Amino acid sequence: MADIQARSEIGVTTGAIRGSRKIYVEVPGNPAVRVAMRAIDLDPSSGEPPLNVYDTSGPYSDPDARIDIMAGLPPLRRDWITARGDVEAYEAREIRPADNGQLGPDRSGGVQPFPNVNKRPLRAKAGANVSQMHYARRGIITPEMEYVATRENLGREMLREYVRDGESFGAAIPDYVTPEFVRDEVARGRAIIPNNINHPETEPMAIGRNFLVKINANIGNSAVASNVASEVDKLVWATRWGADTVMDLSTGRNIHDTREWIIRNSPVPIGTVPIYQALEKVGGIAEELTWEIFRDTLIEQAEQGVDYFTIHAGVRLPYVPLTAKRVTGIVSRGGSIMAKWCLAHHKESFLYERFDEITEIMKAYDIAYSLGDGLRPGAIADANDEAQFAELYTLGELTKRAWEQDVQVMIEGPGHVPMHKIKQNMDKQIEACGEAPFYTLGPLTTDIAPGYDHITSGIGAAMIGWYGTAMLCYVTPKEHLGLPDRDDVKVGVVTYKLAAHAADLAKGHPAARMRDDALSRARFGFRWRDQFNLSLDPETAEQYHDQTLPAEGAKTAHFCSMCGPKFCSMKITQEVRDFAAKQNAPVETFVAAGDAEAGMAEMSERFREKGGEVYLPAE
Amino acid sequence: MADIQARSEIGVTTGAIRGSRKIYVEVPGNPAVRVAMRAIDLDPSSGEPPLNVYDTSGPYSDPDARIDIMAGLPPLRRDWITARGDVEAYEAREIRPADNGQLGPDRSGGVQPFPNVNKRPLRAKAGANVSQMHYARRGIITPEMEYVATRENLGREMLREYVRDGESFGAAIPDYVTPEFVRDEVARGRAIIPNNINHPETEPMAIGRNFLVKINANIGNSAVASNVASEVDKLVWATRWGADTVMDLSTGRNIHDTREWIIRNSPVPIGTVPIYQALEKVGGIAEELTWEIFRDTLIEQAEQGVDYFTIHAGVRLPYVPLTAKRVTGIVSRGGSIMAKWCLAHHKESFLYERFDEITEIMKAYDIAYSLGDGLRPGAIADANDEAQFAELYTLGELTKRAWEQDVQVMIEGPGHVPMHKIKQNMDKQIEACGEAPFYTLGPLTTDIAPGYDHITSGIGAAMIGWYGTAMLCYVTPKEHLGLPDRDDVKVGVVTYKLAAHAADLAKGHPAARMRDDALSRARFGFRWRDQFNLSLDPETAEQYHDQTLPAEGAKTAHFCSMCGPKFCSMKITQEVRDFAAKQNAPVETFVAAGDAEAGMAEMSERFREKGGEVYLPAE
Repeated sequence: MADIQARSEIGVTTGAIRGSRKIYVEVPGNPAVRVAMRAIDLDPSSGEPPLNVYDTSGPYSDPDARIDIMAGLPPLRRDWITARGDVEAYEAREIRPADNGQLGPDRSGGVQPFPNVNKRPLRAKAGANVSQMHYARRGIITPEMEYVATRENLGREMLREYVRDGESFGAAIPDYVTPEFVRDEVARGRAIIPNNINHPETEPMAIGRNFLVKINANIGNSAVASNVASEVDKLVWATRWGADTVMDLSTGRNIHDTREWIIRNSPVPIGTVPIYQALEKVGGIAEELTWEIFRDTLIEQAEQGVDYFTIHAGVRLPYVPLTAKRVTGIVSRGGSIMAKWCLAHHKESFLYERFDEITEIMKAYDIAYSLGDGLRPGAIADANDEAQFAELYTLGELTKRAWEQDVQVMIEGPGHVPMHKIKQNMDKQIEACGEAPFYTLGPLTTDIAPGYDHITSGIGAAMIGWYGTAMLCYVTPKEHLGLPDRDDVKVGVVTYKLAAHAADLAKGHPAARMRDDALSRARFGFRWRDQFNLSLDPETAEQYHDQTLPAEGAKTAHFCSMCGPKFCSMKITQEVRDFAAKQNAPVETFVAAGDAEAGMAEMSERFREKGGEVYLPAE
Repeated sequence: MADIQARSEIGVTTGAIRGSRKIYVEVPGNPAVRVAMRAIDLDPSSGEPPLNVYDTSGPYSDPDARIDIMAGLPPLRRDWITARGDVEAYEAREIRPADNGQLGPDRSGGVQPFPNVNKRPLRAKAGANVSQMHYARRGIITPEMEYVATRENLGREMLREYVRDGESFGAAIPDYVTPEFVRDEVARGRAIIPNNINHPETEPMAIGRNFLVKINANIGNSAVASNVASEVDKLVWATRWGADTVMDLSTGRNIHDTREWIIRNSPVPIGTVPIYQALEKVGGIAEELTWEIFRDTLIEQAEQGVDYFTIHAGVRLPYVPLTAKRVTGIVSRGGSIMAKWCLAHHKESFLYERFDEITEIMKAYDIAYSLGDGLRPGAIADANDEAQFAELYTLGELTKRAWEQDVQVMIEGPGHVPMHKIKQNMDKQIEACGEAPFYTLGPLTTDIAPGYDHITSGIGAAMIGWYGTAMLCYVTPKEHLGLPDRDDVKVGVVTYKLAAHAADLAKGHPAARMRDDALSRARFGFRWRDQFNLSLDPETAEQYHDQTLPAEGAKTAHFCSMCGPKFCSMKITQEVRDFAAKQNAPVETFVAAGDAEAGMAEMSERFREKGGEVYLPAE
């Protein structure tokens, strides 16, 4: 499709997503807030209205938007932020060569700085707290919360016909999401809206057990330095297919400038692991990390607009030896850096000891904590062990400390966990962390399929999402083997999108089934184009179809390549329905006969009433 | 890899599977029975013995085997069958043009007949019953049962170190599989060994809740007639990657001859849906099907050696109207054919009415029933509905009738089922069908990802396998869209293999975790080649690795492309271990400090004892 691969002149993917239109839905009572969605128009023969779907792709998929990555996205939230009157602009921290990993000579790097960097970032006025949680707890409904409510409601107004059906394991998913519901969830810490006040380009979204399950995609510069446009395009590409947030896990050179390009062009919240950059600043020697360098890095990234920080403050000194007899020890990069620091100094982690000071920074910019699982299991053998849960309970303790300052928190989890041990992770997380949102990597449910770990983990992700995890961190096919390319990112995102959706269905989310049903009706009606357009990846669906039956006519054919016309069960089912209709009874009453034996008797009777003629094929 | 894509001169894939050796393990006490397995040798630096893995690939992966698809595989079981003295050879039914779908002129077909077809098949002597269930119930342990016991035990003798750990939902998986255990499981109907006496080429395998979870791959000729070698290669290819059984779902021309080629060359049981061929014999008009034509088709296929028949005897007339208000009606081909027949004649299904006569045939050849789920749901909206469960309870009734004649039975199930409704399928199946093995398609856990239905269904398959399903029928990426090609078959098989393994792990199968642990140790030790070789798809794993770090040296490097040497958490963990070792205490006692706080105190004390020197990096 020509429109799909279109790139703007500076090299990011733009254009409508196949088979859908960008729409903007006004928030009830606040027409200034317009929520981006996509509408999928169905074939007129269906008699069905367009299906609106949740959309993470930002302005890039709007053909009317002017995309210029040199300028960045428009600051959607700027006025909302300043209208609250609790922020001040100030002189930004000065950018130093070390911020870009340029410690020695000949490290000029290959990334140009973002043009027109804002040198006067915002922060909370002295004594103020600009976190969404703080507003929520004071009873204030922000435009961000209104945006989230409309965004999450997606089609629920059309749902009268649906009977809710699901097992939510104690979640409290409402029939309808109101701004007040969003406020309440944020106030009690069950949901977060990660939105740094210096990242006004974001379209607000919520992460919480009572909202749609979200997914995160990781990107990051690679050693073989790519250009700026390709870094930005990784972000655009991941969000095009459904990434709700993106983590920039870059290391090495140009880390500061790359992040600036990403944030300025991102419609979704951006997360980072600040310890990676701090480690670069000390030349990669973990022992040389200090609180001052770390703090400086937090400020640097806060001013750029990072929306959530992974902080491995639960890797405490006494937990490190608990990992020594594991099969794969510590597999988290941040966790291993902190473990090494603790051992080297034989001191408690400075992240743990300085936690309240970190929180002070978080609340001045509304950065959310993503409390890192530095001791997550990296092998089936290590799942749910003492080290893992010791850290989890510490994260619970830190959650309460962050909440004392009204700072938003989510908790990172899993890794490699066999199916029967997944639910315990969710249960303990809820117990330990007071329902703060859980954010898990997979989990991978077996270790024996490198090259297919998007699938080994998609299984675990769907399950833990069902049990209550609020956001799933994707895994690509290259996990454990190499760096993902463009195709891997897409496969990872689509896999996690389907896992998150399977979780929403199983939880009984009231709107989730609409898309499944629309697609299945299209399938049954042989509306091939609708089937492609309604799918998570319309391009691949059409391409696979065309490999067997490429003719244009086949897309309207009332059969398909799998069975051919003679064996088509869908066609036969239509004949069953026609048969029912010919009995002059509406299909519903025909079926409502209920008891099967009674149904047979009734049918047989009608058959005799009609004169006992043999069934006439509908054809 | 040159050895992987090697094909014999007539075009099937042969040669060792990368990184493993074919071995034959003698059955204890019966050296004439030798069980095929593969041994994966590990790098000497690991100090680990070779890992033996379950192997479905037959002689094709044995470089010493002479493969000639014109001759077929050696008849491994022939002597076992004849030694029992209860079979007779007889004049086979004559093959007619209609058997090959050649009803009219100019339908010469493109498939040559298999050379040297055996015209004198075996059947039970008058009054005899040659089913494995019949032997089992009379207390006889057959060589087939011995083969299965050794095959399933795979490495359990090395398991003293493992603590069993899992949730089996009431399964009764033994620590060690004895031939007597196999006999008992077959006798009570909890497992089947599908092995038609006219398919002596098979390597016996068991399908049952207390054995390893198995997978099935579907193949079938396509309209664009391929040659014989490519048909046989589909089978060889699917079993090479792990298909435990293969269903030949061919329709149309040359159906008889194609099946002969497949069976003669198959080391795994072959299943079919005889109604497909019967329908061909009546020109595709369901209403014209008769019991006589169907019976004739059963005999035809029984004589060729089909190991299990899908029989949709549960699609009863009264259930058909229950499907009329479904979103996707009847999606099973066999189900829809029978539904159409029932409606057209307004009569009860002849499969249901003649069930005991079918069973008479099954027991004369030892063909297992795979009782078809003609009313399985084809959409999330239709899951677990009245039609589906009405049929399931009828299948339970039929199971008991088959067991009255000592005929082996498994039950087909799922389709499209959201996660929260999966377990109910397993629970009802156990309740309705007296623990006869469950054999399910997926289930697909959402409808919205055509092109990724191997994954939507891999999620459901892993879960239902955990709950107790004995065999998982694979789904390829092309499901709903087109016919799978060679790559799709491989992706489908590997996906299901990992799902089945995830299920084995979660059930607490005593040997399942050995491979995960070996692979994770290889990963931790940067033994890249071992990691590739231990994986389900060594080729893809290596290829993905090489895309980022192609240099040969990188395969022995003690870091990888994802983090680079500086951020390598595995390397840091090694330093943690080294640190522990330097404290002059074995890692075990160091860890066994148990209570984390106590551990810290102890460590701190030792640190002081050593003179308080700062930690020296291991490097």
